[in-house]
Amino acid sequence: MAARRARLVDAIVGLGRSEANLRTAVERGIIDFATYDPAAAAHDADLVVMATPIRAMPATLRAMRPALPPDAIVTDVGSVKQWVIENLEPELGPAMALVAAHPIAGKETTGAGAADPSLFQDHRVLITPSARSTPEAIEKIETLWKATGARVSQMSSAAHDRIMARASHLPQIVASALAAALHDAQIEGVRPTEFGAGGLRDTTRIAASSPEMWIDICLTNRAAIIEALAGFRTLVEEFAGALEQSDAAALKNIFERGRAMRRGLK
Amino acid sequence: MAARRARLVDAIVGLGRSEANLRTAVERGIIDFATYDPAAAAHDADLVVMATPIRAMPATLRAMRPALPPDAIVTDVGSVKQWVIENLEPELGPAMALVAAHPIAGKETTGAGAADPSLFQDHRVLITPSARSTPEAIEKIETLWKATGARVSQMSSAAHDRIMARASHLPQIVASALAAALHDAQIEGVRPTEFGAGGLRDTTRIAASSPEMWIDICLTNRAAIIEALAGFRTLVEEFAGALEQSDAAALKNIFERGRAMRRGLK
Repeated sequence: MAARRARLVDAIVGLGRSEANLRTAVERGIIDFATYDPAAAAHDADLVVMATPIRAMPATLRAMRPALPPDAIVTDVGSVKQWVIENLEPELGPAMALVAAHPIAGKETTGAGAADPSLFQDHRVLITPSARSTPEAIEKIETLWKATGARVSQMSSAAHDRIMARASHLPQIVASALAAALHDAQIEGVRPTEFGAGGLRDTTRIAASSPEMWIDICLTNRAAIIEALAGFRTLVEEFAGALEQSDAAALKNIFERGRAMRRGLK
Repeated sequence: MAARRARLVDAIVGLGRSEANLRTAVERGIIDFATYDPAAAAHDADLVVMATPIRAMPATLRAMRPALPPDAIVTDVGSVKQWVIENLEPELGPAMALVAAHPIAGKETTGAGAADPSLFQDHRVLITPSARSTPEAIEKIETLWKATGARVSQMSSAAHDRIMARASHLPQIVASALAAALHDAQIEGVRPTEFGAGGLRDTTRIAASSPEMWIDICLTNRAAIIEALAGFRTLVEEFAGALEQSDAAALKNIFERGRAMRRGLK
């Protein structure tokens, strides 16, 4: 939607699985053509934007590959970058380029009905160049994202994955685990979740996100997430120990570090 | 502010510790008189609303007690009810009444500058009657809270504390622990928290809350919070195990339970 508004694209073909979603995309003018057929989507495509759950990307690209122009550029919007590079590069034709990218913005809703061209305004987009990223291809992807109002920068895919394990994947896991822990809770026949206020709502908001998407992020950024989750588990055990000991100073230390982090968020 | 608007009160005396905060309260018309002196605040008071951190309530009431009218009614706004009842009842004169209450609404900001008369609109207020709650006193407190637009109901203090341990105290601890775990995080000289989007912001919003208030909640509702926290720790360990085993089905189960809980929140 943003690329069209910026007149960066001619025709946009949507390759999808769900008729309802493709229909919505056509009706909202997000795409010009809808198809279930990877070869039809690939035909004449200058640029392929992979936006499936991460683990579906290699097979999707493989199915498109025979019909793609030899110099097609492939990019993606996945939240994990090393796995995407390692698994998409082998699927490229010899003259194709890959520019792995991650727009850091999202909603807990999915599908064409939730599409919002202002979603990326003032958000970051990280580009993680790899062996198969040509300068021309990188420039094209930067131009595309800048047209959405995003701030584009580059970093290594390894740093990206460890940073996002903390800034995005860990918060999702914590929110989902909190929500799952409260799912069946009952006290004297009452559901505690009916007595939550804004704190419960905010803390669990992203737990409504797509399980399918998040399973793939967890499995493809597994090592970095295990590392980030270990830091959180240590903190929770520290808190539980302080509470069992009624150690006010230790509790204060954790609450104050938490407040300092939150106040430092821009 | 809401009680005044509803013409339920004559004069409101603010007993505080901070000159700046008392000054703000007078300037905004929240209170008519400001004092540091518990006896001055107690003089002629029909109703005492305890709104200090929980562990400061007994000593504050003890200091006010000699100057209170013999039939004064005492209430509070604390997030824990059993401890408050057990520790305030012994401080009451023989003709006084206690009505412990909990307005389930709040903000991560504190002080008179953050006061908002619409904060309680459509929120719940729980009243937890005790041996020293007379029907007349309960009615008075219900009238007070209904004037703020809140939905008032009653339950036992024991049920209240176990429900709020899950609906409010656990989310606070989880948000603070997540924020604290990320406080000092650095990856290749970069602070991951600078790369967070809305998910990180929402999940940690309440980590900015007052440490002083939350230390008191933790220490006075310790047993119920230990129980609620144990459920969360089990879930987190379950998630970590599933991730280490690359067990997609187990991850899916947790993400789906989390989504079901969140979608069920009103």
